[in-house]
Amino acid sequence: MNRADIFSIIRNELDEVEELFNKNIQSSALLISELTGYIASSGGKRFRPALVLLSSRLCGYMGKRAITMGCVVEFIHTATLLHDDVIDNASLRRGKSSANILWGNVASVLVGDFLLAKASNLLIQDGDLEILKIVGKATESLAEGEVLELMKLKSIDASEIDYLTVIKGKTASLIQASCEIGAILGGVKKEWKEALSVYGYNIGIAFQIADDTLDYIADEDELGKRVGTDFMEGKVTLPLIHALSKVDSVERHRIASYLKKGSEGDGLTYILEILKKYHSIDYCIGLASCFSNKAKEAISIFPPSAEREAMMGIADFVVKRRS
Amino acid sequence: MNRADIFSIIRNELDEVEELFNKNIQSSALLISELTGYIASSGGKRFRPALVLLSSRLCGYMGKRAITMGCVVEFIHTATLLHDDVIDNASLRRGKSSANILWGNVASVLVGDFLLAKASNLLIQDGDLEILKIVGKATESLAEGEVLELMKLKSIDASEIDYLTVIKGKTASLIQASCEIGAILGGVKKEWKEALSVYGYNIGIAFQIADDTLDYIADEDELGKRVGTDFMEGKVTLPLIHALSKVDSVERHRIASYLKKGSEGDGLTYILEILKKYHSIDYCIGLASCFSNKAKEAISIFPPSAEREAMMGIADFVVKRRS
Repeated sequence: MNRADIFSIIRNELDEVEELFNKNIQSSALLISELTGYIASSGGKRFRPALVLLSSRLCGYMGKRAITMGCVVEFIHTATLLHDDVIDNASLRRGKSSANILWGNVASVLVGDFLLAKASNLLIQDGDLEILKIVGKATESLAEGEVLELMKLKSIDASEIDYLTVIKGKTASLIQASCEIGAILGGVKKEWKEALSVYGYNIGIAFQIADDTLDYIADEDELGKRVGTDFMEGKVTLPLIHALSKVDSVERHRIASYLKKGSEGDGLTYILEILKKYHSIDYCIGLASCFSNKAKEAISIFPPSAEREAMMGIADFVVKRRS
Repeated sequence: MNRADIFSIIRNELDEVEELFNKNIQSSALLISELTGYIASSGGKRFRPALVLLSSRLCGYMGKRAITMGCVVEFIHTATLLHDDVIDNASLRRGKSSANILWGNVASVLVGDFLLAKASNLLIQDGDLEILKIVGKATESLAEGEVLELMKLKSIDASEIDYLTVIKGKTASLIQASCEIGAILGGVKKEWKEALSVYGYNIGIAFQIADDTLDYIADEDELGKRVGTDFMEGKVTLPLIHALSKVDSVERHRIASYLKKGSEGDGLTYILEILKKYHSIDYCIGLASCFSNKAKEAISIFPPSAEREAMMGIADFVVKRRS
C-alpha cells in the first residue's frame, strides 16, 4: 500500500481540512500576510488530520466535526514546527546568526502563537470538554518533550530511555490524541477507544524513530540529500545512542570530540562508519517495526474495513518510507 | 491610594495565586529548571491576577476558582513576555546577535509554550466553557496584536488608530478578560458584567499608553534609568505618533533618519526636544487619563465597597505611576 492508496478513501475530507486551514489563516491574512510564507514552507503531509479522519470513520463517525479536529491538530503541529525553527536556528548557527534569522524567529514565534490560539478557539467553539482535555494534555506533553529534548539529547550521555521519553512527548502525544479524538467523536466503547490510543502512541513512536533513522540514510535516487543534519546540530538520537552503547572508549572519545564540533567538524563520515560497524541503523529499523506491529495489533480488534486497512497501511508505511 | 493600599484587601489571595503559580511550574521543575530563571526575571506586578480577584469579590464571589483564574492570566501574561523577548532581541540587535541571545530565544519560546499549555489545562480542568471562550478570544487577540505591532509600529507612518488597534490586542484584551472572568465567577447580571468589561478594556488602554509614555520620561529620583528604549528599538509609540502629526517636513525628515539608525544614532536628545516642543507627553497623559476616567465611570454603577474603591484606585494609579 503506497501513500496515495492509504489516503484515497479520505481524499475529499482531507481537502476539506485544507480548506478550513486556509480559511482560518486568511481571516487575518491582511495582518499576517508577510508571515504566512513560513507556514506554506513548513506545510507537512497532513499525517495527523488523516489519522483523525480515519479513526473517526473507523468508529462510525462521518460528520463535519472530524474536519474541524483535523484542522486543530494540524494547526498545533504547524505551530510546533514554527517554534522548532527558532530552536534549530539556535543550535545550527551558534554565534553566527544574521538579522534575517532573528526576524525569521520573530515570524516563527508570532505565527506559531497565532495558530495555537486559533486551534484553541476552534476546540472551544466545538465545546467538547473531553476533547479539550485530551488536546490540552497533548499540547503540554509536546512542550515538555521539547524542553526535555533540549536538556537531554544534546549530550553524549543520552540514554535510550531519555530518547523514548522525549519522543513520547514531542511526537507521540499529538498523534495519540489525534486517534483518541476519532474514538470520542464515534462515541465507541472503552476497549475501542483504548485500542486507538495504543495505536496512536505506537505509531507516533515508530514514526519518530524512523524519522531519526532516515536522517542518517542517504537516498541514492535523491542526489543532494543532506545526511546527518541531527548530528551536525549536536542532537543525539537513537542511532547514535545505540552505537554509543557498543563503542569502546577510544571510539567514544572520538565521537564526543566530533559531536562538540558539530557542523564545523568533518566527523560525519566517521559516525556513519560507526553506525555501520555496530548495525545501529538495523537496530533502529527493528525497534520502529516493533512499535509499528504493536500499533497494528491494537486495532486488529476492529472489524475489517477500508479504514482499518488504511490504518494498517499507515503503520507499515511509517517504517518503510524512505523520505 | 498607593499600590500597597490597593492590593491590601487581596494580599492573602495574591499569595495563593503565587503559590499555585510556583506549584505548577515546579511540577516539571526538574526538566525545565535551567529555564525558569527567565520567568523569575520577567515576573511582573501581578496586576492581572489582582484584577481577577477584585472583580470576583466585587461580584460577590469569594471561592477558590478566582485563585486558579488569577494564575491562568498570569501564566498567559508571562508567556507573552517570554515570547516578546525573542521579538525585542531581534529588533534591538539587528545582525549583531550572540549565541547567548539565540539560546535565550530557545528558552523563551519553550517556556512560553509550556506556560500557555499549563494555562489551557488549568482552564480545561476548571471546565467552564464561557471562561474558556473569553480567554481563548483574548489569547488570539494578543497574538494578532503582536503581529500588528510588528507590521505597523515600525514605521514613521504609524497612525494613532494603528497604535490603539495594536494595544487593544496586545494589552487590553487580557486585562479585559481578567475583569470579565470575575463577573462570570460572580454570576452577576448582564449590566454588571458589561461594566466590568468596559472597565477592563479602558484600564488596559490607559495602562499601555502610560507605559509607552513613561518610556520617554526620565525619573530624576532614579538615576541610570534608560530613557527612550522603544525609540531605540525602532518602535513608534503614541508620544512619537503625536509629535509626528505636528512636525514640519524638515523635522519629519530628521526624525525618520534617526529612527532608521535606531540605537546606533544619537537622535534621542533631538526626539526628546521634539516631544517637548509639541507637548506630546502631556497629550499622552491626557489621553491615558481619559481612558482611566471611562474605566472609573463604568464601575460607578456598583454599590460602594472596598473592592470598588481599590479598582478606582487602580485606575488612578495606572496613569499616575512613575515606574
